[in-house]
Amino acid sequence: MKNHTKTNITLGIDIGGTNTAFGYVDKKGNLITSSTIPTNPADPANKFFKRLISESELLLSKIENNYNLIGVGIGAPNANYFKGTVERPPNLKWGTTNVLEIIKKHFSLPVVITNDANAVAIGEFLYGAAKGMKNFVIVTLGTGVGSGIFVNGELYYGKDGFAGELGHTIYDPDGRVCGCGRKGCLETYVSAAGIKKTAYELLSNSTEKSELTEYKYEDLTPKIICEAAYRKDKVALKTFDFTSKILGIKLADLVAITNPEAIILFGGLTSAGDILFKATEKYMNMYLLNILKNKVKLLPSGLTGGASAIVGAGALIWTELEKLKKVSV
Amino acid sequence: MKNHTKTNITLGIDIGGTNTAFGYVDKKGNLITSSTIPTNPADPANKFFKRLISESELLLSKIENNYNLIGVGIGAPNANYFKGTVERPPNLKWGTTNVLEIIKKHFSLPVVITNDANAVAIGEFLYGAAKGMKNFVIVTLGTGVGSGIFVNGELYYGKDGFAGELGHTIYDPDGRVCGCGRKGCLETYVSAAGIKKTAYELLSNSTEKSELTEYKYEDLTPKIICEAAYRKDKVALKTFDFTSKILGIKLADLVAITNPEAIILFGGLTSAGDILFKATEKYMNMYLLNILKNKVKLLPSGLTGGASAIVGAGALIWTELEKLKKVSV
Repeated sequence: MKNHTKTNITLGIDIGGTNTAFGYVDKKGNLITSSTIPTNPADPANKFFKRLISESELLLSKIENNYNLIGVGIGAPNANYFKGTVERPPNLKWGTTNVLEIIKKHFSLPVVITNDANAVAIGEFLYGAAKGMKNFVIVTLGTGVGSGIFVNGELYYGKDGFAGELGHTIYDPDGRVCGCGRKGCLETYVSAAGIKKTAYELLSNSTEKSELTEYKYEDLTPKIICEAAYRKDKVALKTFDFTSKILGIKLADLVAITNPEAIILFGGLTSAGDILFKATEKYMNMYLLNILKNKVKLLPSGLTGGASAIVGAGALIWTELEKLKKVSV
Repeated sequence: MKNHTKTNITLGIDIGGTNTAFGYVDKKGNLITSSTIPTNPADPANKFFKRLISESELLLSKIENNYNLIGVGIGAPNANYFKGTVERPPNLKWGTTNVLEIIKKHFSLPVVITNDANAVAIGEFLYGAAKGMKNFVIVTLGTGVGSGIFVNGELYYGKDGFAGELGHTIYDPDGRVCGCGRKGCLETYVSAAGIKKTAYELLSNSTEKSELTEYKYEDLTPKIICEAAYRKDKVALKTFDFTSKILGIKLADLVAITNPEAIILFGGLTSAGDILFKATEKYMNMYLLNILKNKVKLLPSGLTGGASAIVGAGALIWTELEKLKKVSV
């Protein structure tokens, strides 16, 4: 029974390789409340979802006097929108998991799942940097690398729901080993782990002094490398230049295929700011076909604090609910 | 004045880097009559279009007792659908040319222009190998390399009308010099000229006997290399393996981005048959992310004798005419 004194909300979940963020979102894209749990990528899927559901219910219990949950939207790596599954994600030890089944056992509500980058794309389209754009691409730079593609004002899923696997396009067929079992995927260079690897590779082949030598591999983070770069540490600067060049080359390919109005960069690595954006834009245009040079904007996320992933997942199910006309909103 | 005893037809023109094919097409996709002229890529645009228009009118004069021309559709490299221009095509010395203006001076009819690969995509969608498919990509392998992308049952143009520039995605940033002024574009490896270059590169670094040594560079053609390969000439076989590997890697990237139902290969090089298709399919799947492996069909054109480029260009203007509701058909 729908309670008419309460505001309808959806649960938006963003499953990342390191952390999982979730929160409750209203129709206007306001994030009512949110929280984060570690994903613990070595955990089996069932154990993870038990924790996630229990934490989501705890969070809901604090607001349910005023709000009415009407659906669940999930963004996850290797998610199949059509089947409701997550299929062998490279950064999680889940195998293939029917996420819809698991979630529906606990919430008797409409549930929809898509690629995590697709969820971000919906968030940016409805409430963020891509408002009013019909053709754009969102690129997520986090534990993994992904992309969500909007075509003619709609999210593009492709035949099997796997469109936009930018992180697993190949930069160098003989390059770095990837979690997906192949070599040289873009993700092995421009993800959080990729940038650490680059710093180590450059340290191993440098006579420059660098503050990065003070860190154990385990302790080194993109943030530390970024801060060192802003202090003009030469190895850190080279690390960002190398990363931006590879990202720029692969974005140039992406633009040659999709000719979008803008590319929006999202995720942990983008906190590097100019040192990443300016160099990536330079290299992207350098490697673009003349007719496409300087036509594509490279923008930061228009939503703060990583909220667009949760808000996007929440908005995804709002969109589906409208499609299904299951609720009047 | 429309003559009701005559059948309506459109003029379809396919401008290639070497030859330009044109013909008259009815609503059902039948090619009534067609012809070919050399493009002469060093000619200025005006000289080329003078020849083309004169030959088209000559061809029309032979059938105009029975047919009524109602529109012109053109497929050309670097064509801008939105502006009606061809913009600095790498393989033609045209600069930027307003093709719509030139054609409309001679034919007072609706005219539309798009990328040559897009025209082929429309032909395959309406009458060829992609009938009934909503998401597919056509890849043209000729003097240049291009692609046309169908998304949710419609041709995808992108923000500026330049989507699908697959030939100018980069295989190797330090690779072969391209006509577009950059290095390592896919086109420099898998086009007609690219495959010749590969044969010469492999000859220069081989101790094998090869019948390809009997040809001057000028005289060597993909057809000669292909025939030698079917006779098990080792250098020719290696040439096709090298070409298929690079094509397979870049098609894997294309599939990771667009997740289509099928990729249709079209153009001169595809007459190589199995020696190209089987190897390209093998490498494409080898370099594809596990969730996408073996999900995408690699198909030959469903239209004979290169007709799909003309028929597609003709169909393009049929489609536009229906959109504009300028004719009742």
